[in-house]
Amino acid sequence: MTLKGIAVRPLKKLSRRLWVGVDVGGSKVAVLVVDTQRRVRGRATAPTDVSGPERTVASIVAAIREGLRAANAQMEEIAAVGLGIPGRVMPETGVVQLAVNLNLKEFPVGELLEAQIGAPCFLENDVRVATSGVYHFNGNHTLRNMAYLSVGTGIAAGLIINGELYRGSSGMAGEIGHMVIDPQGPRCGCGAFGCLETFAAGPAIARLGRRAVELGTSRLLKDSEPITAESVYEAARQGDTAAQAIVEKAGRYLGQALQWLVTAYDVERIVLGGGVACAGDAFWQPIQRELDRQRKTSPLASDLLTSDMFHLLPADYDAGIWGAIALAQHRLEKEQEETASWESV
Amino acid sequence: MTLKGIAVRPLKKLSRRLWVGVDVGGSKVAVLVVDTQRRVRGRATAPTDVSGPERTVASIVAAIREGLRAANAQMEEIAAVGLGIPGRVMPETGVVQLAVNLNLKEFPVGELLEAQIGAPCFLENDVRVATSGVYHFNGNHTLRNMAYLSVGTGIAAGLIINGELYRGSSGMAGEIGHMVIDPQGPRCGCGAFGCLETFAAGPAIARLGRRAVELGTSRLLKDSEPITAESVYEAARQGDTAAQAIVEKAGRYLGQALQWLVTAYDVERIVLGGGVACAGDAFWQPIQRELDRQRKTSPLASDLLTSDMFHLLPADYDAGIWGAIALAQHRLEKEQEETASWESV
Repeated sequence: MTLKGIAVRPLKKLSRRLWVGVDVGGSKVAVLVVDTQRRVRGRATAPTDVSGPERTVASIVAAIREGLRAANAQMEEIAAVGLGIPGRVMPETGVVQLAVNLNLKEFPVGELLEAQIGAPCFLENDVRVATSGVYHFNGNHTLRNMAYLSVGTGIAAGLIINGELYRGSSGMAGEIGHMVIDPQGPRCGCGAFGCLETFAAGPAIARLGRRAVELGTSRLLKDSEPITAESVYEAARQGDTAAQAIVEKAGRYLGQALQWLVTAYDVERIVLGGGVACAGDAFWQPIQRELDRQRKTSPLASDLLTSDMFHLLPADYDAGIWGAIALAQHRLEKEQEETASWESV
Repeated sequence: MTLKGIAVRPLKKLSRRLWVGVDVGGSKVAVLVVDTQRRVRGRATAPTDVSGPERTVASIVAAIREGLRAANAQMEEIAAVGLGIPGRVMPETGVVQLAVNLNLKEFPVGELLEAQIGAPCFLENDVRVATSGVYHFNGNHTLRNMAYLSVGTGIAAGLIINGELYRGSSGMAGEIGHMVIDPQGPRCGCGAFGCLETFAAGPAIARLGRRAVELGTSRLLKDSEPITAESVYEAARQGDTAAQAIVEKAGRYLGQALQWLVTAYDVERIVLGGGVACAGDAFWQPIQRELDRQRKTSPLASDLLTSDMFHLLPADYDAGIWGAIALAQHRLEKEQEETASWESV
């Protein structure tokens, strides 16, 4: 509370008018600096150092310094920092419980960042931060209930319920990448067999691409090295039948997952994004074919899976970093309200 | 608003101190009358007349009269009535959009009931009403997030999110009976193939029981007529191997659905109930075996599917009717708050 208190008071003097959004990835940290009118003042990316917890924090601070330099600004001008972390986060304490790709476990990232930056730093799981970005900046804020399905290295849904980010009781709501979609499927990193991620996440698509090369069934993929989800989608786009079969199957499972999401949450809109979704039409069309199949088979599905329900996030819209800005503003506002109500007691 | 207004004012004089909970089923209407201390004053059941919409409403009114007679009370003493309806309901208007088993479609049940009873009548989907009953009367009200999974003629989950009943954007949240659990499965009433209901709802269990008799594989079931889900669970309990195979498979699918529920909503507790769940241990043990299998396979499942998360509702606890009482009290209170805030404008 003390550090946050320091930051809160100067804001009233309007000297702290910059907001910093940070998207912390396993390989790079992306930073956006905006002013109170949300005009972009600076951007930066810097490599993530995952060789030790303190070093990870230091590389985040270095990236923020880089962003400030681009904005021609000082640390003292920061009102608050919002950060998206790929893992389990406790937003109240700023402790990262587990972030495998960042090599962090039960580590007080928020506290250390605040000590080095001198402004409030708010942490949240990256998919939830991106959900906030999709909700606040893309004309979706009129919706009461919405989901953001992120398909990348993992698969997870972020949820807006009654206009608020829904975390669940232990911050695990929407972890649908680990819903078992076919118990006969391959083993997942979580131990279970046939989780959605084992069929449709980036690493699964890449693995199936590599297997197609081993089996000699793909004409185009054997020339791409390394084989990634991106190269499999690209090969599919160029007419490679083995790659097409892979993305068709992934689309079928993702379409099934969308039916689940609608049936479970009854949201007004589902936005799809994430690294794999950047493949655009090659990603989206197999999903649409599965949704069309469901609509043709079932009147209930046709009723629920309306055509305007699903939106693909434009590949150039950085929901993670804008969501981090929204998070910083929303959380600081809430904290100041709480402080004000305490002061008036 | 006018009719509800009539009822609101007398309440202040404390002459209207009885609350009526009504569970409207396809074959019978169950009524409970309690006082403001929730002491039971009367109970009644009466047959549901589904030969026409007006008659359905008349049979609900007749059942309420019966309940009042048992309570030795008058219509004028009713503060409010809460009703659980098996179908899609618009709680704000009291219109039943679709209730197949009651033969109702776009019918203003609430309005007609209020005209005949002279007190506010609040309608909601029956599973959601039962969820409210489970939440308010069973020591669960300390939980922020909870689900009630009803397994009966259909399968649906009622949801408490952040301490409030969650309906979703079109009142369809939690309709997980229509999640496709195996696309190779039998065709469901909704048109899709392999919905959860086609494997684990009452009619599915009964159908599999009948098939076992046709195939001559069941020793015990051939003596029960008609074959119901109840008789299949009873035969399983008595050691009939064909019946055991049926309930084992249903338990496997239900255990998978519980994993979905936990993964999607991240609730603190899931309570199971409904007609099929009344089979008690015979219903619950196959589910537990599937959950144990998941826990052994996956550390994540073992972490999420804690043993104290799942509760089987006692067969003698009538969540539907108590939930209807809670609904009536909660909604009338809310309406009075709104009236009060309008009056103070």
